[in-house]
Amino acid sequence: MNDLTYDRFLGGRLALWQPRKGYRAGVDPVLLAATVPDGVTSVLDLGCGVGAAGLCVAARLGVAVTGLEMQEGYADLARRNAVETALPFEVVEGDLTRMPASLRARQFDHVIANPPYFRRDASVAADDPAREAAMGEGAPLEAWVTAAARRVRDRGSVTFIQRAERLPELLGLFDRFLGSVQVLPLVPRAGRDSQLVLIRGRKGGRAAFRLHAGVQIHQRAAHADDSPDYTTTIHAVLHDAAALPFP
Amino acid sequence: MNDLTYDRFLGGRLALWQPRKGYRAGVDPVLLAATVPDGVTSVLDLGCGVGAAGLCVAARLGVAVTGLEMQEGYADLARRNAVETALPFEVVEGDLTRMPASLRARQFDHVIANPPYFRRDASVAADDPAREAAMGEGAPLEAWVTAAARRVRDRGSVTFIQRAERLPELLGLFDRFLGSVQVLPLVPRAGRDSQLVLIRGRKGGRAAFRLHAGVQIHQRAAHADDSPDYTTTIHAVLHDAAALPFP
Repeated sequence: MNDLTYDRFLGGRLALWQPRKGYRAGVDPVLLAATVPDGVTSVLDLGCGVGAAGLCVAARLGVAVTGLEMQEGYADLARRNAVETALPFEVVEGDLTRMPASLRARQFDHVIANPPYFRRDASVAADDPAREAAMGEGAPLEAWVTAAARRVRDRGSVTFIQRAERLPELLGLFDRFLGSVQVLPLVPRAGRDSQLVLIRGRKGGRAAFRLHAGVQIHQRAAHADDSPDYTTTIHAVLHDAAALPFP
Repeated sequence: MNDLTYDRFLGGRLALWQPRKGYRAGVDPVLLAATVPDGVTSVLDLGCGVGAAGLCVAARLGVAVTGLEMQEGYADLARRNAVETALPFEVVEGDLTRMPASLRARQFDHVIANPPYFRRDASVAADDPAREAAMGEGAPLEAWVTAAARRVRDRGSVTFIQRAERLPELLGLFDRFLGSVQVLPLVPRAGRDSQLVLIRGRKGGRAAFRLHAGVQIHQRAAHADDSPDYTTTIHAVLHDAAALPFP
């Protein structure tokens, strides 16, 4: 148990076990979860890790969420987190490139994913093999997008959070396998480049691409000290479980 | 002569003849021209029309600019504008999908283009055939990007201005035929979707994609009356011939 930490999310509405070392959920899965629109009746969280994004969705909307996780250790923690939070979060252990039969038979209103951020060929391998799998991509982004597109119902939506530098690739994939693509850039501080983007597509959608105005994360021009520095919008998402809707 | 108007750009530093009907240069070519970096020694303006973007570059940087224009009427006006403004702007009449031999033999430090904004299959044809060619795309965007990539020197840059809804396609093409792609969104008013984007690639570049913070065009939340409403940055570009550098 010394290998685990117990961390609070959504202003304490949610507390999750996660490994002390390895991939640790931070702000990103919470932002992703905040974009899921009200009214969806089923959500799939691809590559759910310990369940941070999926459990935030379940906590905020009360909707049933299914998580798919390839690594046994993370899947076990996700199940434990679901039980201890008493939220409607079901965990399936399996590989998105070989979709488990139980999921192949199902479709969801909405699919979310926070795919690994770093390409294995462009980064040094992490010490921890589990962290390596979570941080240094196993399946290529195309596998994530096609798995999401297959598991979402017609006219349902898919939302990913990803590093901005992968946007050209991700935009092409969303355009090819989904439709009605929209990008919501996350801007760390006023005037800075986006480091992260939220991207949404609608299966069978034919609307023109939309590039929304960026959502600013931090208030100040630079982070001078350790005092809280989130913008009002982001503070509400992180601490009050507010939605972060696509415009 | 009744078919022409004589319009001032860059706070009166430049005045251009353009057709009263048909494609008329407005703010967009001026913004495009403002992004060309100081220090380039040759610029190609693909599809130059009456020469608005190219002449703005020549006026601001004093650099030699070459314009390629397919339509005789626009090419003639561009030549007249070059002569009357006494700026170093050379006009070649020809089709970018069948690059004239005189240009095939040359490469440029920087290539700019403001390709037609509307897909012919998605818009009603304009009354005026020349306007139709300028507004409703002749060559596909791929032809514009490949022509630009061929005509720019190794490590030279290409900058396009285009409607945001074409970004998925354009990003894929810049990623494929150039490299080190950057997007500078133009945001009409605070919090609004981008309608236009500036996109830049570097031939042979291998840097990660960058999504810059949006540049806001108008100050107020809505345009209530006809009083000037540009932000300080954009006003300086349009009226004082200021640069609009990529960050």
